Amino acid sequence: MTAPAGEEIRLARAYLMRVAEPPALALHALVNIEGVLAAAERVRAGDVPSAIQHETEARRHLDLAGEDLVAAEKVYARLLVPEDPEWPAWQLLCLGPPGDRALRGSGQPLGLWVRGEAPVEDLFDRAVSVIGARSATGYGEMVAGEIGYALGTAGMTVVSGAAYGIDGAAHRGALKAGGATVAVLGCGIDIPYPAGHSSLLDGIAASGVVISEYPPGTNAARHRFLVRNRLIAALSSATVVVEAGIRSGAKNTATTAAALGKTVLAVPGPITSAMSVGCHDLLRTGAATIAGSVGEILEAVGPVGEHVRQPERSTRRHTDGLAGAALRVHEALRRERSRDAEDVAVDSGVPIERVRALLPELELTGHATRHDDGWRQAKGGGAS
Amino acid sequence: MTAPAGEEIRLARAYLMRVAEPPALALHALVNIEGVLAAAERVRAGDVPSAIQHETEARRHLDLAGEDLVAAEKVYARLLVPEDPEWPAWQLLCLGPPGDRALRGSGQPLGLWVRGEAPVEDLFDRAVSVIGARSATGYGEMVAGEIGYALGTAGMTVVSGAAYGIDGAAHRGALKAGGATVAVLGCGIDIPYPAGHSSLLDGIAASGVVISEYPPGTNAARHRFLVRNRLIAALSSATVVVEAGIRSGAKNTATTAAALGKTVLAVPGPITSAMSVGCHDLLRTGAATIAGSVGEILEAVGPVGEHVRQPERSTRRHTDGLAGAALRVHEALRRERSRDAEDVAVDSGVPIERVRALLPELELTGHATRHDDGWRQAKGGGAS
Repeated sequence: MTAPAGEEIRLARAYLMRVAEPPALALHALVNIEGVLAAAERVRAGDVPSAIQHETEARRHLDLAGEDLVAAEKVYARLLVPEDPEWPAWQLLCLGPPGDRALRGSGQPLGLWVRGEAPVEDLFDRAVSVIGARSATGYGEMVAGEIGYALGTAGMTVVSGAAYGIDGAAHRGALKAGGATVAVLGCGIDIPYPAGHSSLLDGIAASGVVISEYPPGTNAARHRFLVRNRLIAALSSATVVVEAGIRSGAKNTATTAAALGKTVLAVPGPITSAMSVGCHDLLRTGAATIAGSVGEILEAVGPVGEHVRQPERSTRRHTDGLAGAALRVHEALRRERSRDAEDVAVDSGVPIERVRALLPELELTGHATRHDDGWRQAKGGGAS
Repeated sequence: MTAPAGEEIRLARAYLMRVAEPPALALHALVNIEGVLAAAERVRAGDVPSAIQHETEARRHLDLAGEDLVAAEKVYARLLVPEDPEWPAWQLLCLGPPGDRALRGSGQPLGLWVRGEAPVEDLFDRAVSVIGARSATGYGEMVAGEIGYALGTAGMTVVSGAAYGIDGAAHRGALKAGGATVAVLGCGIDIPYPAGHSSLLDGIAASGVVISEYPPGTNAARHRFLVRNRLIAALSSATVVVEAGIRSGAKNTATTAAALGKTVLAVPGPITSAMSVGCHDLLRTGAATIAGSVGEILEAVGPVGEHVRQPERSTRRHTDGLAGAALRVHEALRRERSRDAEDVAVDSGVPIERVRALLPELELTGHATRHDDGWRQAKGGGAS
């Protein structure tokens, strides 16, 4: 294992992360071509091409790198950079190869502020994002909680956005199972957003990590949630949408995940629920496959063969195994009164010789009983 | 329009329909090769190949054709035969061409007992089957009723099986809309099955027709429902499954409809409901496409262009139309206190010149207001 990145590199990245609003594609390309120290120097001096000038001009005079690292430390957070061995390089690769201006998934982060002690690259070995509407229904929250619990029990990391509704229920389900869970924020790592999830975020940081590419103190804003969503999609091998309205950030994450080649699952719900419209849209357009049960989700996201398919939710009928003529003969019998073979043949349309052969067979298999005056259907052998 | 079939033909078909339990593939082939009169003669005499003997031996001595026609008349029903111009020949063709022993859809009926005055071939011009579980949930029955109503309003015929639960709700929805509806029975046309739907069946016969290929007096039986299902599938251009358990006759109808090349739609529901498992299975395997709303069903089953897509269930946000830098500038503004352009530039990461150009634009579009001490977000322009 190589050593963590040096302080100079960390400070340069903290500076650039403060200066440029993510995703800063042009800046990212410069960093990958010239190295982060040279790139930071050039940005500071205003000596950059116009595309990068556009991304950095408004804030390039703000050198708060030291202050940001101190502010992070105050909430027990650290800055993880691509030069660190712990960096989830493999997972983030889907956002575009370093230095490629035509970044596929809108660009890798310049660094990640991380709160929590869990080793980041291990957390994302087997991670599934569980996302959905803030204004979720009771049904949605219950299902999200069950999915989070099942994934946590199966040893997978539950990734979500710490929002009210589905996100929170998924995190809590994972925590309840003693599993690891990760919250990716659209604000500074030191901002408990939403405020009502402050202690949930503490719990997440204790079991897994809270991460953000925004500098400490950055306020939550809608465009930041959309930018953040690409990280949720990239860091998970599969994304499960539990509930989503017709316009929904969760749908945005799902389509991003699909574009990144990830497995996308959507949980159906009542067509009378506005909170399932987004999921049904994803299913209709083929962007997602249906998640009809928690077992199906485990099957879809788990390594091949690791998760045994749950037994079919089915009950055997007494008449299972009866087919064709035998079934017809059985249904021509009555429970409360006897019938002779001739009547059975007429009623069932099965030839009399075949009826005479089948009745003793049905007796042997427990489907018919022989009486003095003929044959009856055995108890338990209902004709539906 | 050619004349209805003669009495001799009708009697011969009534005889054969009494003698052979549908689908009698071998007998059907004989009828198509030799004609129905000759075929009836040969069956009566026992002068038929072994395959047909097997289909007819148990009941060939029963010549109840005259009695059956009288029994039907008593419930105001008639026997429709392929020789009648009213016969829905085109719709039934998908069950296999006449005389083909390798019948694709398990064979056309030898005739149809019909109760109701509506002209049969017109009813099936634009017909959609709406089917599902007998032990439906309140949700399922409500949705089935709405679908039936919408199809009835759109001038389409609702085809179903008259069972409790989804079938009944779909029939009732169509009747409520003043639309035509058709019940296809798995028992004799004179048997009100299920008993609790006796008056519903009367209503169906008054608006559309009740049909069956079983002779009068035939009891309902599970194997007959399965055989009957092929007629529901064949007579409709599309099949909508509203609720279905893991083992379900509705699933059987749906897979038959898919095999016949018909449009198959499944209504999703809560994954916590056992009555939606069958629908989700149909969606997962690709046997059905998702029916996320009544509007989507009308769109899928209606002639192209006839049904206008319903307006998107969506609301415009105040900030719709804002994108990129304008959105970021807008979100950096506050409602209750003013900010100057420099602060906005720092917070949004948008270059100061661009911020100075965008703020008046946002004022013009009603997203920002200018004050003595700077700029504010306009009321109604909420950040997220």
